[in-house]
This record gives sequence, C-alpha cells and structure tokens, in this order.
Amino acid sequence: MIDLRSDTVTRPTEGMRAAMAAAEVGDDVYAEDPTVNALQARVAELFGHEAALFCPTGSMANQIALQLLVPPGEELLCDADAHVVTYEIGAAAAIGGISTRTWSPAGADIDPDTVAAMVRPAGFHAVPTRAIAVEQTHNRGGGGIIDLGVLKRLRGIADDNGVALHCDGARIWHAHVATGTPFSEYGALFETLSVCLSKGLGAPIGSLVVTSAENIARARVLRKRMGGGMRQVGVLAAAGLYALDNHIDRLAGDHARARRLAEALAPTGVVDAARVVTNIIPLDLSRAPLDAPVFGAAARERGILVSVLGPRNARLLTHLDADDAAIDRAAEILPGLLS
Amino acid sequence: MIDLRSDTVTRPTEGMRAAMAAAEVGDDVYAEDPTVNALQARVAELFGHEAALFCPTGSMANQIALQLLVPPGEELLCDADAHVVTYEIGAAAAIGGISTRTWSPAGADIDPDTVAAMVRPAGFHAVPTRAIAVEQTHNRGGGGIIDLGVLKRLRGIADDNGVALHCDGARIWHAHVATGTPFSEYGALFETLSVCLSKGLGAPIGSLVVTSAENIARARVLRKRMGGGMRQVGVLAAAGLYALDNHIDRLAGDHARARRLAEALAPTGVVDAARVVTNIIPLDLSRAPLDAPVFGAAARERGILVSVLGPRNARLLTHLDADDAAIDRAAEILPGLLS
Amino acid sequence: MIDLRSDTVTRPTEGMRAAMAAAEVGDDVYAEDPTVNALQARVAELFGHEAALFCPTGSMANQIALQLLVPPGEELLCDADAHVVTYEIGAAAAIGGISTRTWSPAGADIDPDTVAAMVRPAGFHAVPTRAIAVEQTHNRGGGGIIDLGVLKRLRGIADDNGVALHCDGARIWHAHVATGTPFSEYGALFETLSVCLSKGLGAPIGSLVVTSAENIARARVLRKRMGGGMRQVGVLAAAGLYALDNHIDRLAGDHARARRLAEALAPTGVVDAARVVTNIIPLDLSRAPLDAPVFGAAARERGILVSVLGPRNARLLTHLDADDAAIDRAAEILPGLLS
Amino acid sequence: MIDLRSDTVTRPTEGMRAAMAAAEVGDDVYAEDPTVNALQARVAELFGHEAALFCPTGSMANQIALQLLVPPGEELLCDADAHVVTYEIGAAAAIGGISTRTWSPAGADIDPDTVAAMVRPAGFHAVPTRAIAVEQTHNRGGGGIIDLGVLKRLRGIADDNGVALHCDGARIWHAHVATGTPFSEYGALFETLSVCLSKGLGAPIGSLVVTSAENIARARVLRKRMGGGMRQVGVLAAAGLYALDNHIDRLAGDHARARRLAEALAPTGVVDAARVVTNIIPLDLSRAPLDAPVFGAAARERGILVSVLGPRNARLLTHLDADDAAIDRAAEILPGLLS
Repeated sequence: MIDLRSDTVTRPTEGMRAAMAAAEVGDDVYAEDPTVNALQARVAELFGHEAALFCPTGSMANQIALQLLVPPGEELLCDADAHVVTYEIGAAAAIGGISTRTWSPAGADIDPDTVAAMVRPAGFHAVPTRAIAVEQTHNRGGGGIIDLGVLKRLRGIADDNGVALHCDGARIWHAHVATGTPFSEYGALFETLSVCLSKGLGAPIGSLVVTSAENIARARVLRKRMGGGMRQVGVLAAAGLYALDNHIDRLAGDHARARRLAEALAPTGVVDAARVVTNIIPLDLSRAPLDAPVFGAAARERGILVSVLGPRNARLLTHLDADDAAIDRAAEILPGLLS
Repeated sequence: MIDLRSDTVTRPTEGMRAAMAAAEVGDDVYAEDPTVNALQARVAELFGHEAALFCPTGSMANQIALQLLVPPGEELLCDADAHVVTYEIGAAAAIGGISTRTWSPAGADIDPDTVAAMVRPAGFHAVPTRAIAVEQTHNRGGGGIIDLGVLKRLRGIADDNGVALHCDGARIWHAHVATGTPFSEYGALFETLSVCLSKGLGAPIGSLVVTSAENIARARVLRKRMGGGMRQVGVLAAAGLYALDNHIDRLAGDHARARRLAEALAPTGVVDAARVVTNIIPLDLSRAPLDAPVFGAAARERGILVSVLGPRNARLLTHLDADDAAIDRAAEILPGLLS
Repeated sequence: MIDLRSDTVTRPTEGMRAAMAAAEVGDDVYAEDPTVNALQARVAELFGHEAALFCPTGSMANQIALQLLVPPGEELLCDADAHVVTYEIGAAAAIGGISTRTWSPAGADIDPDTVAAMVRPAGFHAVPTRAIAVEQTHNRGGGGIIDLGVLKRLRGIADDNGVALHCDGARIWHAHVATGTPFSEYGALFETLSVCLSKGLGAPIGSLVVTSAENIARARVLRKRMGGGMRQVGVLAAAGLYALDNHIDRLAGDHARARRLAEALAPTGVVDAARVVTNIIPLDLSRAPLDAPVFGAAARERGILVSVLGPRNARLLTHLDADDAAIDRAAEILPGLLS
Repeated sequence: MIDLRSDTVTRPTEGMRAAMAAAEVGDDVYAEDPTVNALQARVAELFGHEAALFCPTGSMANQIALQLLVPPGEELLCDADAHVVTYEIGAAAAIGGISTRTWSPAGADIDPDTVAAMVRPAGFHAVPTRAIAVEQTHNRGGGGIIDLGVLKRLRGIADDNGVALHCDGARIWHAHVATGTPFSEYGALFETLSVCLSKGLGAPIGSLVVTSAENIARARVLRKRMGGGMRQVGVLAAAGLYALDNHIDRLAGDHARARRLAEALAPTGVVDAARVVTNIIPLDLSRAPLDAPVFGAAARERGILVSVLGPRNARLLTHLDADDAAIDRAAEILPGLLS
C-alpha cells in the first residue's frame, strides 16, 4: 500500500528508533526529563521565544495556546477552514469556552483588510476579539504558504487592536523550506505558535507550544487539565530532536514529489499544479466523473490510500515514507481513475 | 431626552401596567402560573409550534434554543454579525460549548449557496454542523428582512444535510408587519425560534423560545440551569399578552418614522434610506467628519441619544416611545451634526 | 388549596402590586432604571457592602457570586446538601467549570474543624480551594440557623487560607428576625452574598448579589452571559422595595406558625419540633407508615400541598399566603395521615 | 538520589526499551497501529470488558470515563480525597461540566451506607446522581485496598439507583497482587475502569479506559477533543505490553519493601505500619517536630526524595527503581529526621 492520506502516517526510521531507545529520561510532570527539556529549549530558541512545552498532539498544543490567549466567552477569529475549528472536535468552544467567528475560507490567501474589519475592539458592548489564528502552511488550503508581507500586516492589525496572534505551525517547517524564511522571523510575529513533530518531520508523537516563559507556566497547568501531563517523555522527545536534525531539509524533496504528482493529475481538472507549493495536493472532484468516496475506494483497490474529506473533496500528501517510486506509481494510477 | 438608542428602552404604557397589576399569577417553576401559561400557548400557536417557554431575556431564549439544537463541541453556522455571536457575551461557546463558524456579514442578504458550502455533513472527520441560525429582522444588518424565498432555500439546505434551523426572531414582528408574511409561515421554517416582547412590542421584560413540546421539556431544565426559572411570572406575561393585542400593528408607524428619519439623514451620506425597511437606521460614519463616539456625545448634548456601536458605526431605532414629534426633532438636529 | 410546598408560591399583595404599577422604570442593561438602582443601593447598604445587582433568580445570583470567586477548574467547598449543588441543575460545574467538594450534610450545624481540614492551600499540586459557601438559613437543613460564632470561625479559616466566603442568603431575612443579628453583621463576614426577594419576602421575582463594586462590574458581564440582563426591571424592583419595607418583621409570625405546625406533627415522629426555628418544617418519613410520594398525594386530596423531596423526605413551609387558619387546618389534617 | 516521591518516576528497563525500539506501528488516529490495538484488546480481555482505549495519561483516561458516564450538569459522587477531584486540575467540572459531591475522606474504608444516602435518584428536582467513582488502590488513602465485599455492595447500590460505577484503577495491579482477586472479578463490578501503565508497572507513558465497545467509540471522539489522539502509539504500547508480561508479579516485592520502610518509621509516630498494605507509605507529621516542607528538604539533603502533599503531609512510594538497598538506606536515614 502507498499511503498518501496524510504525513501523519510515517513510521519512525531506524535512526530515530535508536535515538528513542537511548534517550535519557525523567518524570516530566516534575519537569525533570532532560531530553524533553532539551527539545523544548531548542524549539523555543529556534523560533526566538522564551519557552516551549511538549504536548501529545498538535490539537492539544493549539488548544492550550488558544486558552492562553482567549478567556472563556471572548473571541478568536480564524479562517472558516482552519484546523482549529475543523479537526479539533470543537475543543476551543467545548473546553476553552472560546467564541469563534470566521472569515470565508481563503487558505493562504488571507486578505488582511477582511480580518481587520472583523476585529471588535473592547468597549463597544460586543464580544471582544482577543486573538487571531492563522495556519502556516494551510492544511485545507492545499498546503499554501501565507506570504510574509501578509503576516506582517496581520501583526500590525493585531497590535493596533490589542489582540494576540497565534500560528498553527504544524507544517511551518514546510513554509521555511519552501521560502527560506528563518524560523525566528516567523516566530517574531506571533504571541504563540504550535509546531508538530509527527507530521512532515516523521516523529511518532508530539507537538510543542512556543511562547513566553510566563505563558508556559500557565500552559503546564492547562496541559495537565487536558490530560497531557505525561511522565518519561524523553523517549518521544528524542525522536523529535532526531527529526529536527535530520528531517527538515529533506522536505524539499517532498515538495518536489507533490508538485510532480500534481502535474500528473492536472490534466484531469482536479488540481491546479501551480498552486501545489508544499507537500499537500488538494483534489476538487466537483467536475470529476466520480465522487470522493468512490474515488477513494477505487484508489485503495489499486494500492493507494487517499484522504476523503467530503463528498467531492479528497487530498494527497507526500512524506517521509513515500519515495520517488511510490509517487511515480501514484502518478501512473490515479489520473486514470479520474478520467 | 429623545432616546433612539434602541427599542428596548420603551416604558410600559398605562394599559400595560394595568394588565400587569391585575394579572393572575402562580409559581412558574411548578408551571402553575396561568398567565404565563396562556402567553406561552398563544405564542406557540401563533407560530404553529407545539409549545413555547418564557425567558427573562432574548439572549437566554436564543441560547436555550441553540443548546437544544447543538451538543457541546459540535457546530452552529451563522452570520459574522449575528446577535448570537455579537451581543450575548460568548454564551454559545462559554455555556453551551458550541463551536461557531460564520459567513461574512451579509445582514438580510444571505446567499444560500455560501451557507450550503459551509455545512459539514457528519462522517468526514470534521466538526459536524448541527444548526444554522438566521436573524429576522437582522439587527446589525440594519433591520433588513430576509426574503421568504431565501429562507425556504435555507430550509432545503438544512433538510438536505440533516441540520436544524433557528430563527432569532427578536424583531420578527417587524418582518411580519412589513411583508405581510403570516407568523405561521415563518414558524414552519424553523425547528426553534426566539421572539422578544421587550423590544418593538414594548413589554418591560421577556422573550420566548418556540419549538416542539419535547424540546420545551428539555428547555425548562436548561432555563433553570441558566438561572431563568422565575416564580410569579404572570406579572410579566400579562404585559406580553397586552403587547400582542395592542402593539403589533402599530409597528408600521415605527417603520414609516424610521424611513422618514433616514431620508433626512441620507444627504449626509451616512445611510441609504432605501434600505431602511423596518425600525432600524444604521449609520456608517466612515466618511463623516466626526467619529461615532464624538457624534454620540454631540447628539446627547442636543437632547438625542444614539447608539454608538464602534469607532465609525452608530444606530438609531424608532419605537413606541418615539412619536412623530420626537422623530421630527431628530430629523431636524442630527443631519447638522454630520455635515 | 393550602399550599405549603414552598415560600416561593406567594402571590404579590395589593400594596405590592400598586407599587409595581407605579414604578418608575428605565433600561437596566444601560443601568438606567431608577427603581432597580434604588433597590440595589439599599440592599448593598443594608449588608454593609459597596454594591448589589438584581438577578431574575436566586440560582443566578448564587452562580454569579460563585463565578466571581472561583475560576474554572478551581474549587468550592460546601455542604453536600447545599442549594448550590442540589437545586441549581449543576450550574456551578456546567457553566462555571467550578469543582466542588462537599462536607457531609450538616445543615446549620457546621463543624468548622471539618471545613478547615478540607481546605487545600495553593502550592501543593492539588486543586486549590478558592471559596467556601454556606447557606443561611439552611434549606435542606430544615431552616436551621448557623450560629454567628461558627460563621466567625469560618471567616477566620477563610482568612488563614486566603479563600473567600459566600453566603447563600436566600432566607437570611429569617435568620435576622429569629436571632436579631443585624444584616450588616452578617454582611461583614462574606465576600459575596445572595439574598432573595421572592421567597419569604413575597415578591414575585428577584434576587440580588451583594459584594464589592469591582465584583459587581464583573457580575454585570456574567449576568448578561447567563441571559439575565433584563430591561425595565423597575416593575420588579418596586416589589422588592415594598417587601423590604413591609415583609421582614412579619416573618416572626411565619416562624411561630411553623413551630406550631411542627408541634402538631411531632407526635407522629416525623419531625423534632424543637429544631424548627424558622419557617421550614422538614419531614423525615423513614419510620412513617407511608412514603413521601403517597403522603404528598394524600395531603393533596385533603386540600394541602406539601413538597416531596425524596422517597422518604417531605417538607412544609410557612409564608405570607398561609395564615393562622391555614396552618390550623394543616395541623388538624396532616398528623392523621402520618399515623 | 533515592527517589521515593512516586512510582511514576521509574525509567524504562533495557528489556522495555528493546520492545519499544522493535514495535510495529501505524497511525492510531485511524486505529491502524497494530501494537496499541493488541494492547487494548489484551487489557480489555484481562478485565472482561469488550474494549479499551490507550490514553497519554491516567487523568485523561479517568476524565474520558467520567464524561462517558455523566452528562454536563449532572452528578458524580466520590471520596473527598479522590484523585479525580484532587490531582486532575478540576477537569471533571472545567471540561466535563460534571457536578461533584464528595463523602468525607475514607480512603479504602468506604461505608456503603454513607454512599447510598448521598445518591439522588432522578425525578425529585435535585441534580441527579449518574455515577459513583472509587479508587483502587486509594492513593491519598495510603494505598489502601477497598474490600471486595464493599465493592459488591456499592455495585448493588448503583444497580438499585440506576447509576454507574467507575474505578480509578491506576494501581489496581497492586490490589490484585496483594489480594489475589482476579482482574476480571474487579472488572465485572464497573461500567468503566481506568488502568495505568506508567505507575507501578514502570512504562514511561500510558493509561487505558476499559469499558463497552459502544462507550469506546464515543471515547475516541472525547479523546480527540481533549487532545489525546496520537499517531504511532505502538512505541508506547510496546512498553505497556512488556510491563504486563514482566512487571505485575514483582509488585509483591514493592509491597514488602514498603511495609519494611513503614516499620522503620513507625516508632516516630508518623505512620501505622499495619495499614501499609501496598506500595504507598503516607506520613502524617501532625505531631512531628518538623513540618512536611522542612522534612522534605532535609531528606533531599540526605539523598532521598519524598513527596510533600501538604503542610503536615508527606508520602513515600516503593517502585521498580527502588531496590532493597535503596529502601534499607531510606529506613536508616528517614527516622532520624523525624525524631
């Protein structure tokens, strides 16, 4: 099976497993695991923030960040297709009590003026906006990269209105590799970021919240409340450190493979290859001869797993466990199913 | 002072006070208040539903309805300027745990296709949409009336996707008077409605949730949890019954007065009089020589109270306590402040 | 029917209705209702606090007070039979996210050492205690009055541990009348109190939170979130002012009538008359020849309504609408049903 | 350093690390990780239930179980010292909206009649009790074991009242080893159990919820909402399987060492050695010459870490990483600090 459903499906490499097996560990509830402490310090420094906190998932990292920024009953603005309001089971509202308003799905093509018009300053009876969240790269936006200039304008809007900016940076590694923008330049734009080790970077488990030391102290409490206060976390953190050392640069290859596969699919009309700039290939089957669930089943029968996101939406991702041969094979088989 | 901030500011008339003073009452926590029972039965019948429940405010009526329709962690869709995500202090998220996604502020000009594209059917990993809320008339949308054809298309979208439809009908009375659409025709389109007695209708206190008998049984529990299980409610319900008898038809006059005042203001460029179809006059001061707080203060000095909604947004409403003379005076004074 | 289920069932008197009909009103969302403002100022002063806020129910007043004192995920201590964890539909947890631990039902006979042993100071990993709630008089504790000395010891415990003290004072009027303790002496012991106008005092609707001005500013927001931001509240506040003027002293008669009825019932073994010190008569039918629902039905058949609280628990209350003749009749009929 | 603060501090053994390094893995969000699937099936079978679900922590496992059993605003009964209301940061209330009432701290010496008297059946206006939670062994109760007969009586009370029974079985392994009661006999008594791999069993991370297949389907959604939907979980599950194979029987040694250390401490009056029946030694310093924080600091200086639980409470635990020599050394040093 060639599994292109997500970059979360990757299995730890031999080198990564060796690092995990050799990891020095301690009890992280007491903040005494040396390996996770090293990972947290390294990621914080990478993004130019004071501190970071390891979490079992990207969802928990995002939700902790949002709870840091927005009190219950106050407001977060984000894209209507943002991961935080799509794939996190309503946690912002159900756990954080956070009210969300959304702009029309724009993927990476955010219009700062639209966002600015939505912000509600405190003092006018309406629910006050406390934070704006963006996603870099944008998952449902086909892995698109928000332009640095746009991010800077959003930072200005946030400053003008006294609201915070959060980056769901699950795949910020890909944005860095594709654009060359330093992590610290991204980091400087946000009060909080989440970054993920178990998507493109190939670690089995783990995400981090990156923010100020004061926020991280509160985040430790929120993490425990959500059930994320684990013990000998070093076995997982070692995989993360290994991934930072070995799996960032290689993302360029994933991007190239994604573009190659998109180009193979483009003639069927389901994707605009020019917009495939990182490792995600969104498929719009609105005008295809079959719907997404049927396409998914057909692909599976031919040995390829694709992600079915809706009646007419599907998705392919390239990653550590999908080499050139796998992508060639997908490029050979999938277009035929869509014609 | 001529108070045009809101139609909530009206004081009970002599007749209404007499009705309240004479009201037969009982303990409504035991459902034994005959006057509120009569009011509830009458409003339910008016909208062609099985039952209704009196609440101290429109916010509570809306929030109970939303909690009836959407479990914690699941999704409500609404306008980004809807009352339920603007003026209810984040209660949908903070109390109901309800995740909201919003379409771009459209007031009464909802595009059903936009809404349809946002609905997420269950079964595709994303947070499932459970309800769509609309507002008739639309408060921040300048009192606009959603077209009956549009509402019917939304009903179809809801049916196709197995989601519910809620109407925040705080001013549905105005829509009825302006269009002649029977209340029962509106009622037939929604699983739940809220209607308000203390805005245009002039009662001092009270709103109702209108829905099925089964929902109302659950609503009684939710109302008590929110602190809305009051006792001798008949004193308030009597005002509501009086308002239904005496204050619906007179709304046509409020609409005419609003249009007249809008026409007086139109030359200053702050309002399009043709769009003032009920009792709300939204003022956009983007290009005015003064901002909204300054305008509000100037008007107050001249004896007129206006509502300041944002740095450049203000609002006027006509109502029971603003007669022709009051509106004439406002029409004389306000344009001068904006030139 | 003689209705002894609760003192909430009273109907407004003629004098009270006249006061309501004549009330000057305004829009209380804008804090402009002169009558409710007067009531709030008067109640605050009565208890020696800076401010008070009118709420539609005692449940809302209690829950707002608790939310003021305890952040989500932190802890409130109270009696296992306290109204706040018994009759408020789980609102402290469901709305406030407040964790509760309870001491064994003690009614008014609180052991301060038991409470002291439960308090968890911050800094030892456990959920920190932020507030202790008591109930004066104690509803499920048979209207018992917590001794002033005990309350002062609880105040000391609270001070020693940096936690707050809340009084559910729905029937604190009765404690004052029975003991002569000034309201201000009670008020001085608590960060927050709730007091109720629609139980013993006979107003149709309304309770107040009493606390600091700073807390009341936050309480206004919490009240609006819970759906309690009503408009021309003066019509209700007028009843409250009337009740303060006219219905406090008369509670002594309710107490005497309760004691008299208890003495009539004592020979059946369902109540210890010596413990009936205010207007509540708790009936323990553990050793009675019939269970509480059957007793309730039999009493109803004979024209008397009693409250059935559990399989073997019932309750009678005296109040404004139960005069000497009514109580004599109950004293004549009820003992026979229990023999 | 000899670390006796908790049995959570253990580090994975060489054999366990080898098992982790060799684990077959998959993406557990898609339920495709073969190792975690094997672990879940094995634990479910061990306790005679249909299914189990791996969670990053015992807190998450407990909280998911409680959310399965108790809807928001309804009630859980438990010991006032239960882990679920002590060390889980108020999550039951803050996340689940669950109202808790507690019986006086009884450790393992639960009086079923006390519990029965607290249960509130539905239908009498009070918040209905939906579940009762017990803890086996009882952490703050000094590792005490609830008698099987008591558990069976609680089961009967639960059945009589239509409420559910949850077991926080973080250390149920110890109860099994100490009493010989089969896991399945424990399992048969509860609707839900949580069991922990990272305390006495020595795995680095992981707990499981054990219950019906239908509950586990809902638990998967709740786990994702709480941020516990991890990916290649097999690396952790392999440690759990290894622990089940290798680390249960050895707990008898931990128990013997705990008793030995307790006997050494008994002459100082801080512990009753006869009550130390598993691996926890609770220290009551009420009459000791120094308080708990000072004792903790002194012990640390001598190379021994103890857990300080309160001003006068401390705790020692034996575990996989504290061998005979370590305990001998503690038995030599600690009594001297307390005299």
